[in-house]
Amino acid sequence: MKKEELFENIKRKKSFLCVGLDTDIRQIPLHLRENDDALYDFNRAIIDETAAFCVSYKPNLAFYECRGAQGWASLKKTVDYIKTNYPDQFIIADAKRADIGNTSIMYARTFFNMLDVDAITVAPYMGEDSITPFLNHDDKWAILLTLTSNRGANDFQLTTDMQGECLYEKVLRVSKQWGNDENMMYVVGATQGALFERIRRIVPDHFLLVPGVGAQGGSLEEVCRYGMTEKCGLLVNSSRAIIYADATCQFAVKAGETAACIQKEMAFFLSKKGII
Amino acid sequence: MKKEELFENIKRKKSFLCVGLDTDIRQIPLHLRENDDALYDFNRAIIDETAAFCVSYKPNLAFYECRGAQGWASLKKTVDYIKTNYPDQFIIADAKRADIGNTSIMYARTFFNMLDVDAITVAPYMGEDSITPFLNHDDKWAILLTLTSNRGANDFQLTTDMQGECLYEKVLRVSKQWGNDENMMYVVGATQGALFERIRRIVPDHFLLVPGVGAQGGSLEEVCRYGMTEKCGLLVNSSRAIIYADATCQFAVKAGETAACIQKEMAFFLSKKGII
Repeated sequence: MKKEELFENIKRKKSFLCVGLDTDIRQIPLHLRENDDALYDFNRAIIDETAAFCVSYKPNLAFYECRGAQGWASLKKTVDYIKTNYPDQFIIADAKRADIGNTSIMYARTFFNMLDVDAITVAPYMGEDSITPFLNHDDKWAILLTLTSNRGANDFQLTTDMQGECLYEKVLRVSKQWGNDENMMYVVGATQGALFERIRRIVPDHFLLVPGVGAQGGSLEEVCRYGMTEKCGLLVNSSRAIIYADATCQFAVKAGETAACIQKEMAFFLSKKGII
Repeated sequence: MKKEELFENIKRKKSFLCVGLDTDIRQIPLHLRENDDALYDFNRAIIDETAAFCVSYKPNLAFYECRGAQGWASLKKTVDYIKTNYPDQFIIADAKRADIGNTSIMYARTFFNMLDVDAITVAPYMGEDSITPFLNHDDKWAILLTLTSNRGANDFQLTTDMQGECLYEKVLRVSKQWGNDENMMYVVGATQGALFERIRRIVPDHFLLVPGVGAQGGSLEEVCRYGMTEKCGLLVNSSRAIIYADATCQFAVKAGETAACIQKEMAFFLSKKGII
């Protein structure tokens, strides 16, 4: 998907919500667990009820891999279901990959050709040649970890170098030379509200993928105040708060209602910014 | 596997070789490619011929994932084959994972419970809570990226902070508090020969997993001179130089011969150090 198309979808749906499909077999409603492909059945129900309120889905690879070959089959079916029924959704494989060049080439092929998602999250530690193999696929995106929402973000990401630059700032400054705002985004945790201004000084035009609103405690208002651009520039993810909103046979309807609530808040911030 | 057991295997086999199973369907001999499970058939032949000369196997996840559910099945069969027939082999899933805590817990379960390998490679960028879920499984190991063998290692890993410490040194110093030399190892590229001394000052007792000898140009002699400890402390990986030593029906025999050559060199360095 192209950046302009994503922005059009955001305006049309008045939403920049990304629904995280962290589908854990032990957390889905009991009546589904014995199904042949419980993960897929759960996802399909969630997708049908939430698709009107979001512009993106983000399956988290860990939750599929832990079921081995069967999990990969559930993931593939889920992605195919979204692409067939909701082709306007931007699909992100939350995989946090990256390795030496010849290996990253294989990962890029896996996610962009075989699975055919729009984007994959990647980790910056191994530098340029571990990321560039993800940047030469038409209309596909690498989403680079920058400033994450967890406590461990403090261990290395905030380390200040001899020039007074934090590691996450260096990651932004250096990596934006590898690609552009049409094939790269950055992961910035919603819990890092105060640092969004510093981030926007380095990458004023890139989309940011923002996890951590909801279960992890980040504030949507703060994220929008400091992170939103004229072209929105934000995909805000919510996973558990939506997909596990309810554990009864009403789980999908409740997920849809929760997504609708978030969408309404998002419409307010888009309107305030003059985007819609 | 416990550290002491790994060391005993190294002494008995006079080898600290790890064979990387970067099995690419497009690079395996033509006569195998049409098999139902070509990756597994290739691996099995390679394993049978090399097992006498190595102490470890390291399947690279990218090469299995790129075949989706089928690739995961090939990987599982390969791991099971090694565990059944060569239970003294230390199996490393080269996966370079790590994510927020609840996701890393899922990855740890995948690799340590379902796949049941001994170790997984992990990336440090997200800090402590992204790694600790890999450290509380008995006799299982997290192998943390530290100083990699690729060109991109220079982008961030060598950044010097206000205290004059390089990022890779900080990763070593900080992370060694998270676990110990019985559940953590570090990835240090063989191409970084000159820096092994600095690394050994910070982690004198940990095993290092060393890729980059062979195809990537690192020197075994330099790695041993600066990196070997009284208990060896090294697993040196070779992938392409061994498994693609030959593309005919003699591929496995040639792989065995190449592994045997490397094992002889390793025996020399172990003997020189007085370990055998």
